[in-house]
Amino acid sequence: MNSAAQSREPLRWTITTQLPVAYEIVETPGLLDPANPELLSLPGGATGTETRLVVLDHSVSDLYGERIRAYFDANDVPVTYLSMPGDEESKSIGNVLDVVAKLNEVGTNRLSNPPIVIGGGVLADVVGLAASLYRRGIPYIRVPTTLLGQVDVSVAAKTGINFGGYRNRLGSYSPPPRTLIDREFLATVPRRQIRNGMGEIFKMALIKDLRLFELLEEHGADLIEARFQASGGGPLPAGVPDEVIGRAIAGMAEELQPNLWEKDLRRSVDYGHSFSPLVEMRALPELLHGEAVAMDCVFSAVLAAQRGLIDEAVLERIIAAAVRLGLRPSHPLFCDVDLLTEALADTVRHRDGKQHLPILTRIGEVCFLDDLSVPEIASAADRMGRLLGPAAVPVAAGRLG
Amino acid sequence: MNSAAQSREPLRWTITTQLPVAYEIVETPGLLDPANPELLSLPGGATGTETRLVVLDHSVSDLYGERIRAYFDANDVPVTYLSMPGDEESKSIGNVLDVVAKLNEVGTNRLSNPPIVIGGGVLADVVGLAASLYRRGIPYIRVPTTLLGQVDVSVAAKTGINFGGYRNRLGSYSPPPRTLIDREFLATVPRRQIRNGMGEIFKMALIKDLRLFELLEEHGADLIEARFQASGGGPLPAGVPDEVIGRAIAGMAEELQPNLWEKDLRRSVDYGHSFSPLVEMRALPELLHGEAVAMDCVFSAVLAAQRGLIDEAVLERIIAAAVRLGLRPSHPLFCDVDLLTEALADTVRHRDGKQHLPILTRIGEVCFLDDLSVPEIASAADRMGRLLGPAAVPVAAGRLG
Repeated sequence: MNSAAQSREPLRWTITTQLPVAYEIVETPGLLDPANPELLSLPGGATGTETRLVVLDHSVSDLYGERIRAYFDANDVPVTYLSMPGDEESKSIGNVLDVVAKLNEVGTNRLSNPPIVIGGGVLADVVGLAASLYRRGIPYIRVPTTLLGQVDVSVAAKTGINFGGYRNRLGSYSPPPRTLIDREFLATVPRRQIRNGMGEIFKMALIKDLRLFELLEEHGADLIEARFQASGGGPLPAGVPDEVIGRAIAGMAEELQPNLWEKDLRRSVDYGHSFSPLVEMRALPELLHGEAVAMDCVFSAVLAAQRGLIDEAVLERIIAAAVRLGLRPSHPLFCDVDLLTEALADTVRHRDGKQHLPILTRIGEVCFLDDLSVPEIASAADRMGRLLGPAAVPVAAGRLG
Repeated sequence: MNSAAQSREPLRWTITTQLPVAYEIVETPGLLDPANPELLSLPGGATGTETRLVVLDHSVSDLYGERIRAYFDANDVPVTYLSMPGDEESKSIGNVLDVVAKLNEVGTNRLSNPPIVIGGGVLADVVGLAASLYRRGIPYIRVPTTLLGQVDVSVAAKTGINFGGYRNRLGSYSPPPRTLIDREFLATVPRRQIRNGMGEIFKMALIKDLRLFELLEEHGADLIEARFQASGGGPLPAGVPDEVIGRAIAGMAEELQPNLWEKDLRRSVDYGHSFSPLVEMRALPELLHGEAVAMDCVFSAVLAAQRGLIDEAVLERIIAAAVRLGLRPSHPLFCDVDLLTEALADTVRHRDGKQHLPILTRIGEVCFLDDLSVPEIASAADRMGRLLGPAAVPVAAGRLG
């Protein structure tokens, strides 16, 4: 502005560095056995002695509260408990601030007494976001108790809450150093919640794992029936629950590790997550996350079939697999062209102006589209309308009951 | 829990990666000249065409609103403006959510239309936190308009808001890819705000830069008088404003780069920030941040003198320098032993159970203490009481008027 200033060389300072990130997912049977040290061990191996905040969702508190208290009592660790609802509508800033207030109350240090969250994916998102903001980020320990939590949230670095009618509009990338998985929690999970988790396993199978898809075709219904408990007897081979959960986790880890902060916006794991976020929000509280994702998986497969990327027979196999998992392949909102177009528009903003739409080329492989048109959406929505019809609904409804 | 599960090898998955981070601070005279492209250029060099959210603090809006509008109009960039208060009490979750709502309204992409914040440090914190949460993190462009903003916030990666009576209790490490500095903004900054920024320069001089300290002793009062404008004539040599700002920024950059996420909790830049956060919050709105920091710098120097780490003569030189900068060396809250002890206790939680207290060994060098005792605090508080007395106050008060 003044000529003296303009005549001199501008000054410039650059900061260049990198943040190393490492976290682990540990499967530990008998997590609530007081002799099992995993729940108390901190990153680095130490065991804290200061008060811990333990956040439970209401159903975990009801079902496991007594054993959880017994665990910490037996280990002489002082705990303050907080119980919260675990439904999607609870992914709110208000609940995040409730957790923050409790962290203040407990006297939470920067590192040495991290909060523990035991519950479903919603609670992990809320507590994870609170921890990532508290003192600009403290560690936390995550114990997913639902199938969705164990196969999908367990690997994720993301936290998030809904805001302004948009799903996960606010959040962070802040993986807990340790996520602990005990499959026994699934024994008490309602079957609808097991099917909800199956929605994400179904997605993982479609994008990269034909073997996993075949396991779902063959054993999916039995896995739901047995709630992934191998000891339940019946027609389920003993190794199948571990193999299905293990393949889902390993697939997710393989996809996330090279692209944890989503610098590359072409992400195959976004399959089933292009149209469903807005559908899920508009349908609240009707649809669970995995239910909406499964519908998006089917819708996206319809788009692939329309383009000739997959055969009609493959599409039908995919729809049949979803139905066999008790997941409805369609919903009236997936027939609403305006809503689907709006959903895609927001997804495009999220992918910085590009569609980057993962689309199947076969079961186990995706490509990316950037030129999907409204007439294609309309035509696929029409097909989704036919999947609402009497041929499909009774099967799905029967399994949903 | 069941023996079948316990007999098998536990499964474990590990994710290991790193996040590269680079950001720059660019001094660009004539920032609001429509021919200057810096304000529009995005990281990577592109210029966006979509609507930008531009957040101004009220005083910037009053003083520069017309020129800012003219700048974007001349460059044909559509803008939505938001004006917010810039006082410390505005570092609230409510204001963060107001920014988020505007980002939704504008239709903010993941990368290509980052919001721009033009204002003081408070606004940078609020908009920075909103951007770091939005879609789990979008870039933003930061234009600090106060001295504190230009020499301290400009280099920082941190964002933060106050919560539950604690300063910066919630926040993130999310530096904007570009921070733009134009010293001309300082010409309209009230002198009390210039002194406020001097508080942080004073700290930087004390911990690592004797030359900077001498510049403050010699030219500090004139710099305040001229508001860092070199063209103002008078007794101020032309190169001094640039040298003072440049040394402060370079010192900060040098300290932050190797420890951006504060994995090492022994941070010399925390000098002046061990007792002051709680004092500042309790005194709100009386004390500005840099004013409270300067008092903490003096208090910590008193602690150093009590231990014999610095001579009484050095302590007196430090107090005299603060007074010469128009910064009060003491405050009744710095005489309150209970409050100071409580402040240290929270700082210890923030430093994970250790004091890690930076203490001067001479002007330009610190060591760290982990064994400060309450009697030492009490004795230093007593000395702070004497600094409130008639010998010091009139000088400081005169400059504050």
